[in-house]
Amino acid sequence: MAEFNRIAVVGAGLIGGSILLAAARRGLAGSLACWSRSESARATLRGFGVAEVFADAADCVRGADLVVVTTPVDAAEETFRAIAPGLRPGAVVTDAGSVKGAILLAARRLPAANPFVGAHPMAGGEKAGAGHAAADLFDGRVCFLTPTGTEPPAALEKVRLFWRGLGSVLHETDAARHDEIVAAVSHLPHAAASALMLAVRDQEGFHPFAVGAGLRDSTRVAAGEENLWVGIMLANARHTAAGLRALEHRAAELRTAIEQADAATLRRLLAAARVARQDLDRPA
Amino acid sequence: MAEFNRIAVVGAGLIGGSILLAAARRGLAGSLACWSRSESARATLRGFGVAEVFADAADCVRGADLVVVTTPVDAAEETFRAIAPGLRPGAVVTDAGSVKGAILLAARRLPAANPFVGAHPMAGGEKAGAGHAAADLFDGRVCFLTPTGTEPPAALEKVRLFWRGLGSVLHETDAARHDEIVAAVSHLPHAAASALMLAVRDQEGFHPFAVGAGLRDSTRVAAGEENLWVGIMLANARHTAAGLRALEHRAAELRTAIEQADAATLRRLLAAARVARQDLDRPA
Repeated sequence: MAEFNRIAVVGAGLIGGSILLAAARRGLAGSLACWSRSESARATLRGFGVAEVFADAADCVRGADLVVVTTPVDAAEETFRAIAPGLRPGAVVTDAGSVKGAILLAARRLPAANPFVGAHPMAGGEKAGAGHAAADLFDGRVCFLTPTGTEPPAALEKVRLFWRGLGSVLHETDAARHDEIVAAVSHLPHAAASALMLAVRDQEGFHPFAVGAGLRDSTRVAAGEENLWVGIMLANARHTAAGLRALEHRAAELRTAIEQADAATLRRLLAAARVARQDLDRPA
Repeated sequence: MAEFNRIAVVGAGLIGGSILLAAARRGLAGSLACWSRSESARATLRGFGVAEVFADAADCVRGADLVVVTTPVDAAEETFRAIAPGLRPGAVVTDAGSVKGAILLAARRLPAANPFVGAHPMAGGEKAGAGHAAADLFDGRVCFLTPTGTEPPAALEKVRLFWRGLGSVLHETDAARHDEIVAAVSHLPHAAASALMLAVRDQEGFHPFAVGAGLRDSTRVAAGEENLWVGIMLANARHTAAGLRALEHRAAELRTAIEQADAATLRRLLAAARVARQDLDRPA
């Protein structure tokens, strides 16, 4: 028997589309509903053939016992306002935003009768849009939950059931800690890849024919859609800016060692980076 | 019939080992010889069963009509000195170093009767050592040749024949231009990946469990062996330092936009980086 009567997915990008496909394949709900602002995305969603597709967000969530908001981080508040009139009292709301502190604040727009539990599945990539959705996107991937401790235990349990049901490995922490973690492992690396891509492009010696796997891999995430990332970086500004400052500092340290032909310092820095990078591949 | 009577490979890391395997598979030489400073590397080379293995560099090159130096960039001068006594007059010398200006200078240690043509196959990766050698390492990869115009045309032709024979796609330019190009596409990205890895590790929020493909790819090259890279970066110091300065500048630009909540500037920078990154994947 399905865990939920009806799940509504509000927003239909890579994450929203993949939730629909995964929930359908795993039979998580009696029925699925979804909404997108754009007609072309709605056409893609209709093509999936797994969910009722709505052009109005409040209509989409009507009758759902679980609502998943997957619109961009900087649209969260607007989305919460838009769905509020359609929410059934007691319906639980979760989201998939990459930043959690700002979204917790935005969730105050929800009716008091609708508990909210923030979530952030660490899945996705530089290919945006429901057209790249995949039913296995969440399989074995970390999904953060950021309960506040004030939500009804049953609501938290439903949100756990949902994300675990999609194949995610849950990790619960508070929103502030979450934002600090993802700044380090995701938002800083994204900003760094963008900075590197621009710096490389700025060099006289830059010639695409000579580009190999090293530069391609180092800059891959910089191909991500900028409108999503502007919202994420500004919503997590303090930690992302601190990370960039550390990057500037480390780059300057390496540069100074090179300029001064200080082989010992350069070796120490490169060795520390090598060890840290190799540690990423060690089984935990 | 083989193109060369005897090819000697001096140095036995990933590149040297792969040259031996590729030359053997493609039947480029009547016989192969190789040298390594280390007994354990010599054991690996003997295990390949394709080349006579020497513990003395001058002995290794005796009787060869083509000699390929694959020792680290900062050992080039020492290697040229070491092989000089064994070189047959007329034997052509090439190399595989990632920096060409400094190696051209070091090649003055070679006897006047031995023409030198610098080369740099853009192949390899963060796995060092002959144990990771592969016969197809050079297939379809760019190999720079940096002739000076003063070498005998027949010597240049032999070096072309050799590298093309390994499967490389040749690109000829002068040493100064080469060094500028590889700084942009390889040495700067390596230094940037190291700086990013250190900056990420420095963050309070850094937790390996949350690391995904983005950070892993962005920092992959930083796992490279630091002793190789100290030599490369110091031998190409001016261009690498200039690239790092550009990275610091771009990172500071992004940081300032984030700190000032300047969405328009942040969007413009991230969009420019996205376009530049997408261009890397466009067929030339």
